[in-house]
Amino acid sequence: MNVWVINGPNLNMLGRREPEIYGRESLEDINREIIAYGEKLGLNVTCFQSNYEGELVEKIQQAAGNADCVILNPAAYSHYSIAIRDAVAAVDLPVIEVHLSNIAAREEFRHRSVVAPVAYGQISGFGKHGYFLALEAAKMLGAGKEEEHAAAD
Amino acid sequence: MNVWVINGPNLNMLGRREPEIYGRESLEDINREIIAYGEKLGLNVTCFQSNYEGELVEKIQQAAGNADCVILNPAAYSHYSIAIRDAVAAVDLPVIEVHLSNIAAREEFRHRSVVAPVAYGQISGFGKHGYFLALEAAKMLGAGKEEEHAAAD
Amino acid sequence: MNVWVINGPNLNMLGRREPEIYGRESLEDINREIIAYGEKLGLNVTCFQSNYEGELVEKIQQAAGNADCVILNPAAYSHYSIAIRDAVAAVDLPVIEVHLSNIAAREEFRHRSVVAPVAYGQISGFGKHGYFLALEAAKMLGAGKEEEHAAAD
Amino acid sequence: MNVWVINGPNLNMLGRREPEIYGRESLEDINREIIAYGEKLGLNVTCFQSNYEGELVEKIQQAAGNADCVILNPAAYSHYSIAIRDAVAAVDLPVIEVHLSNIAAREEFRHRSVVAPVAYGQISGFGKHGYFLALEAAKMLGAGKEEEHAAAD
Amino acid sequence: MNVWVINGPNLNMLGRREPEIYGRESLEDINREIIAYGEKLGLNVTCFQSNYEGELVEKIQQAAGNADCVILNPAAYSHYSIAIRDAVAAVDLPVIEVHLSNIAAREEFRHRSVVAPVAYGQISGFGKHGYFLALEAAKMLGAGKEEEHAAAD
Amino acid sequence: MNVWVINGPNLNMLGRREPEIYGRESLEDINREIIAYGEKLGLNVTCFQSNYEGELVEKIQQAAGNADCVILNPAAYSHYSIAIRDAVAAVDLPVIEVHLSNIAAREEFRHRSVVAPVAYGQISGFGKHGYFLALEAAKMLGAGKEEEHAAAD
Amino acid sequence: MNVWVINGPNLNMLGRREPEIYGRESLEDINREIIAYGEKLGLNVTCFQSNYEGELVEKIQQAAGNADCVILNPAAYSHYSIAIRDAVAAVDLPVIEVHLSNIAAREEFRHRSVVAPVAYGQISGFGKHGYFLALEAAKMLGAGKEEEHAAAD
Amino acid sequence: MNVWVINGPNLNMLGRREPEIYGRESLEDINREIIAYGEKLGLNVTCFQSNYEGELVEKIQQAAGNADCVILNPAAYSHYSIAIRDAVAAVDLPVIEVHLSNIAAREEFRHRSVVAPVAYGQISGFGKHGYFLALEAAKMLGAGKEEEHAAAD
Amino acid sequence: MNVWVINGPNLNMLGRREPEIYGRESLEDINREIIAYGEKLGLNVTCFQSNYEGELVEKIQQAAGNADCVILNPAAYSHYSIAIRDAVAAVDLPVIEVHLSNIAAREEFRHRSVVAPVAYGQISGFGKHGYFLALEAAKMLGAGKEEEHAAAD
Amino acid sequence: MNVWVINGPNLNMLGRREPEIYGRESLEDINREIIAYGEKLGLNVTCFQSNYEGELVEKIQQAAGNADCVILNPAAYSHYSIAIRDAVAAVDLPVIEVHLSNIAAREEFRHRSVVAPVAYGQISGFGKHGYFLALEAAKMLGAGKEEEHAAAD
Amino acid sequence: MNVWVINGPNLNMLGRREPEIYGRESLEDINREIIAYGEKLGLNVTCFQSNYEGELVEKIQQAAGNADCVILNPAAYSHYSIAIRDAVAAVDLPVIEVHLSNIAAREEFRHRSVVAPVAYGQISGFGKHGYFLALEAAKMLGAGKEEEHAAAD
Amino acid sequence: MNVWVINGPNLNMLGRREPEIYGRESLEDINREIIAYGEKLGLNVTCFQSNYEGELVEKIQQAAGNADCVILNPAAYSHYSIAIRDAVAAVDLPVIEVHLSNIAAREEFRHRSVVAPVAYGQISGFGKHGYFLALEAAKMLGAGKEEEHAAAD
Repeated sequence: MNVWVINGPNLNMLGRREPEIYGRESLEDINREIIAYGEKLGLNVTCFQSNYEGELVEKIQQAAGNADCVILNPAAYSHYSIAIRDAVAAVDLPVIEVHLSNIAAREEFRHRSVVAPVAYGQISGFGKHGYFLALEAAKMLGAGKEEEHAAAD
Repeated sequence: MNVWVINGPNLNMLGRREPEIYGRESLEDINREIIAYGEKLGLNVTCFQSNYEGELVEKIQQAAGNADCVILNPAAYSHYSIAIRDAVAAVDLPVIEVHLSNIAAREEFRHRSVVAPVAYGQISGFGKHGYFLALEAAKMLGAGKEEEHAAAD
Repeated sequence: MNVWVINGPNLNMLGRREPEIYGRESLEDINREIIAYGEKLGLNVTCFQSNYEGELVEKIQQAAGNADCVILNPAAYSHYSIAIRDAVAAVDLPVIEVHLSNIAAREEFRHRSVVAPVAYGQISGFGKHGYFLALEAAKMLGAGKEEEHAAAD
Repeated sequence: MNVWVINGPNLNMLGRREPEIYGRESLEDINREIIAYGEKLGLNVTCFQSNYEGELVEKIQQAAGNADCVILNPAAYSHYSIAIRDAVAAVDLPVIEVHLSNIAAREEFRHRSVVAPVAYGQISGFGKHGYFLALEAAKMLGAGKEEEHAAAD
Repeated sequence: MNVWVINGPNLNMLGRREPEIYGRESLEDINREIIAYGEKLGLNVTCFQSNYEGELVEKIQQAAGNADCVILNPAAYSHYSIAIRDAVAAVDLPVIEVHLSNIAAREEFRHRSVVAPVAYGQISGFGKHGYFLALEAAKMLGAGKEEEHAAAD
Repeated sequence: MNVWVINGPNLNMLGRREPEIYGRESLEDINREIIAYGEKLGLNVTCFQSNYEGELVEKIQQAAGNADCVILNPAAYSHYSIAIRDAVAAVDLPVIEVHLSNIAAREEFRHRSVVAPVAYGQISGFGKHGYFLALEAAKMLGAGKEEEHAAAD
Repeated sequence: MNVWVINGPNLNMLGRREPEIYGRESLEDINREIIAYGEKLGLNVTCFQSNYEGELVEKIQQAAGNADCVILNPAAYSHYSIAIRDAVAAVDLPVIEVHLSNIAAREEFRHRSVVAPVAYGQISGFGKHGYFLALEAAKMLGAGKEEEHAAAD
Repeated sequence: MNVWVINGPNLNMLGRREPEIYGRESLEDINREIIAYGEKLGLNVTCFQSNYEGELVEKIQQAAGNADCVILNPAAYSHYSIAIRDAVAAVDLPVIEVHLSNIAAREEFRHRSVVAPVAYGQISGFGKHGYFLALEAAKMLGAGKEEEHAAAD
Repeated sequence: MNVWVINGPNLNMLGRREPEIYGRESLEDINREIIAYGEKLGLNVTCFQSNYEGELVEKIQQAAGNADCVILNPAAYSHYSIAIRDAVAAVDLPVIEVHLSNIAAREEFRHRSVVAPVAYGQISGFGKHGYFLALEAAKMLGAGKEEEHAAAD
Repeated sequence: MNVWVINGPNLNMLGRREPEIYGRESLEDINREIIAYGEKLGLNVTCFQSNYEGELVEKIQQAAGNADCVILNPAAYSHYSIAIRDAVAAVDLPVIEVHLSNIAAREEFRHRSVVAPVAYGQISGFGKHGYFLALEAAKMLGAGKEEEHAAAD
Repeated sequence: MNVWVINGPNLNMLGRREPEIYGRESLEDINREIIAYGEKLGLNVTCFQSNYEGELVEKIQQAAGNADCVILNPAAYSHYSIAIRDAVAAVDLPVIEVHLSNIAAREEFRHRSVVAPVAYGQISGFGKHGYFLALEAAKMLGAGKEEEHAAAD
Repeated sequence: MNVWVINGPNLNMLGRREPEIYGRESLEDINREIIAYGEKLGLNVTCFQSNYEGELVEKIQQAAGNADCVILNPAAYSHYSIAIRDAVAAVDLPVIEVHLSNIAAREEFRHRSVVAPVAYGQISGFGKHGYFLALEAAKMLGAGKEEEHAAAD
């Protein structure tokens, strides 16, 4: 099972500044951990980051046919990029939206994700562990997809 | 590590109606799976459900001192119960909010959770697997809490 | 045909205060009239009142399998109880929403009922007669359900 | 007791199109049933329809002195015709607002009726039976008007 | 193929005032051009104008059975006439909404058309040529209707 | 007369997925039809697509001096790209906005185009035929520009 | 100098009901007083009333060429009739808007007049005297039009 | 009959700048005309202007016992001075609100006057003639006060 | 004079956590101080707390006939419990609303209390002293009720 | 302990009009009672009133160094005077906001006080007794300031 | 070249309190620096402060004829004083708006300045240096006014 | 001291069109003037422009370590690019936001800059001189940074 992890703008800055807030780990460090975690679950993980909305749109488009599941942290674009939303809706793949921070606890304009309504599910607030949880979710989807609609709330 | 799973109103109806939509599993079935999944992770899980806002408030209060982590699906109360929000804020425990469905894909009034800003993180859209993911998260929190603030988005 | 009449908060205060405004009849008096009216129509009516949102949720849940139709006056809860809305949506029964007063003629916040979109129909503004009209409607539903969708406005 | 039933725009299209949605009965068919139902209750019913806001305003004005009660389905005009609202407020008659469908379950802009605050009461969601219920209500008003204010919610 | 062109309020004033703004052509002049343009396309065009909302509602209703396509400029009524919207939704015909001016470039309250969501498509900003384009569209609809859903944005 | 047809994000996905919804024609297929349709009208058409907002901005800028008219489908960017709006306002060319679908019939956030107020006109809801209509409009503009202000609504 | 006084919906009901609120004078009585008041000022006054929006639109259109000034009480239509607004904007005449009551002191939805921005001025709250004041204003306009823009607030 | 004319901020600038827009008459010139007009009507007029909200509040307070009617142009304060509104409501005198310009035709924030709901009536858009009309109104009030409530719209 | 002090959800948590923020005193400690303060004023005080909305509704209902004044801290329910508001409006007793903190200085959603419009008065921001002040107010009400309407702001 | 009582606009009108509504006591009468009440509590009270926002700003500024506590009734200015808010925030003194009436029960625009978020606490709805309660509060603050943060709601 | 620097409410408090936040410099200190900075640029600077809206209005009015440029910090009045806005619009002078702090980074209600749309430009966030920058701007305006419109964003 | 000047979309069009509005100077001309102005102040200035949001994000990221201060004109992106906002917040440098025009005097949607709350300060409305002022500000920041918080409004 192939999983693509796609990160949006400014996430390339992780670990470069203010370690007491953003941690000491760079995106490269975290990507290594994500790939290792995926391996343990039997998942083949590929990581990608871009600050360009257009490039993110195209990466999501390319996932169709190349990946079985997308883990997407649209970062700032979460809150206004209908282009990314449309790309997510266009690919016939489960897209799991991840946010490092609890976006509901931040500024008002970060509470709403325009991508969320077309994503498969969201995981937010767990820092880098959110990616690990998303990998667990990806694996569960692979194993138990037929139960995906068993949801009342 | 003790984990309390607290479910809100109408979740006791799971599996009783319309299996093509809500699945065939009852809340009791799912609780059994949650407890078993927790056992595999070395977590001691206790499950609880109530349709009463006041009872949910008190259960969350009682978690202080009895649990190390709370997994909470406030269901309909997510969207207006400031009383539950205040209880979550009052207990000195990580509270993980879970929603079976992707609430961002449902009616406008379900998009906002008043509990979310004081929760530790959210997991939504994965059906019953959301509880399993929350257990994974609880375990990660126990193991790696010191990294919890490493979040840029 | 079994009909449950479920009344929400503060309706137990009917007839206890200010007779020039609220009438001299208590809820017990009105319930007796409702049951008698139902008998004339061949309906077996059971009445219930609670000030607890959670108890109302459960009573609505219990109607499934025990009643053929629910007549519900959610009173104050009409305007914010998504929990009651979800319970109404969850039971596979026609639920007729009744309000004693014309809620559109009262304070702005009473104009909207969050229960209404999932109810079968609404009757408001006719005082206690609203329950009688709801019983008539319940009987019509029993007799002519197949025409229920013949509605352009 | 004379009752006028006044129907607004596009209700003349009932039964002409899409029978699986709007039923097979035309407005003429329903009017016949309404008149017959009124006869059984001892009510003298007259039916009227117009697509013109101005004509509806005048018909409501003319009801004063000619009818004891008006049953009004303003259809689309419900949502913006302050002219009809003013006409309803100007006639010294109880006006019962009827909607075939449950307007709270339709598009957002149909949830609010500008006529409702000056109507006596509303009945919505019962299809053609809504007119029958309104006739029952008209008769109750004739018999028991003195109790009309016995309303707490 | 029969096409009805229906114009709303104040369009009968075209060409009567301020030629530097509204042009020198009257509605009658434009109608002649529309009919001639239709003839070239093999379309049989009939033109109609009214300042009465009710009359416009009825003309749209009458198009059912008499026309294959309606070209509608609701003018001022575009922005509030739910009655016209309902008439458009009720006839089983493609209705093409035309505006002479670019309504998005005018006052805020003209930006939204309540008719648009139930129209087949909109053409605005091209002056009288908008009607010619609508005729072209009507012809395309006749020829290639099966492709009408090939739309991603 | 040179006409540039510029398409925005995700339109390169046309025809690649779900043919029952998006049609079987790819953007390349449609572009060929557009060019052929233009040839019949004596128009020299060039087609372009990008998922990058910045690239679309620059293409619109480059149209000045190279094209006589621009046909623009900004797709998702329609709803928030003030950068594209400013580019449209900056070029001294008529820009015709086209949408394949009737955006007024889709999600609320798609109803408003921030580009529309500075476009010459809009055509929406006609699928690929919208481009053909825009070509007809472009030709009319070339022929009859002096009448462009003859618009009362 | 010819002045047309045009009254909108339900004003034909003046004096027919509730004299303690609406006065004992009918619209006919008031019209006679208006005409007499006009005569004293040397104005030739014609009065008109309609409950039809379309008829009011056409009466305003006809004022062009037949009157030097229009006094308009659009009544309920003030608050939503863009058709009447457009007719007012289309006639090249000063239109003085009159309201019997102080609309700013009534329900929220009556505070805004969509006609006001295109009227010459407004007079509201003076009962029937508002028409007399409007006649005085009409005479002043005739005498001193060149000063009409001497306004800082 | 004593009438006080009270003008608010920046009206002392009338006639000092930009005569093509604001006219050549200063406030002193206009005051002289107002006093003369009042004399013809048998009214004893006193004029006052202040740029201080507090001074306007006190002048209105002092009108009680000293004037029979107040003509008030609150200028910019119209739109936010609840202090002036409260002063108007506190004096037991008819207060006629005058605006030189048609405030409904200016910026959105000038459309609402917080003073208007407690004023007797409004006159706006007639330039300096508005004061003359207000004097006419003041005289009518003195003569015909008993009819002041004869208002349906 | 009997005074009931009724506290809402989560106030039972006072003093249990974070003493530097919430103080070291438990609700029991504060209740003892309230009762003692009341005794000094000659008031017979009874204290009550519940986390259940329904129980609070019923306690307020029971105050009728048993208490002369109610001091109510609805806590989180202040902001949405129309059921509690209706109970307050239904009892014929002065209800004094108390908040420990200055709710206007907290989150936006805490600024509005739906109970406040039907309470006698509010006291907020004085910590536990707010209850003492409310007792002083209760005593003043008993002594000087006839002056209660002497209020201009 | 020195306490300054500062009253805002129109409070100088107390007792001058409509005694059945505003009471018979003038502001001078109430000030005498406030000073006497303060004396009993051992507080040295100085009273001040102004209708000028600027003068109120300066009085609050001057309280710094001259008073230990300010009791402020900003009256109408409560709802928009950010200047007074900033003065309150600037002085390093507890400022207790008092309103004679229950502002939550009056017009919508009076519900919000822009001063409240920077005040120490609010007391509203108790008429003149509100000042006495504020004096009690001032004394409590002097005695028990260290507990001021013991507040959960 | 004469420059007037006009400061609004509470700026007279600078340097009097909390030096760690507001700096140790008083307004008098800063004014001295401003005048000295102006001298170096060849500008004749006069400084003024008032807490009274009316006095600020009049000072701005008086600048006409006495100053070539106004530097205005309206402080709290920025956010609601339409009177000051109108004064700024009325004087035929460039008015440069200065804010010491970055108002976009403070409370929501400080983000909007009602004065800004009629000012020449804004400078905010640079502390006292903002005045120096405004002096530089004033000098540039004197030197290069003809380029003032060379602005695309 | 190194200063980077970063310009956003469409600013490359300066001087290319409509010289009477946008001036005759191209961005290259202005950049030369900016660099020269910087040299006089002893600042080493580098200029950059892009129409790509992603490229602007990266340029701001790269400023960290390479520049001491950033002058940023985000142009259209000011109003929605949270990605640029996040980049500004992420670099540990003072970022001065510049707008050529007075954005508060343009369309409503341009009034708000989402970048402003995280910028150091703003300068708008001075045309190209805004960049010179920003250079002056940059120099002041270098010289007097310790005073940067001396700001009360």
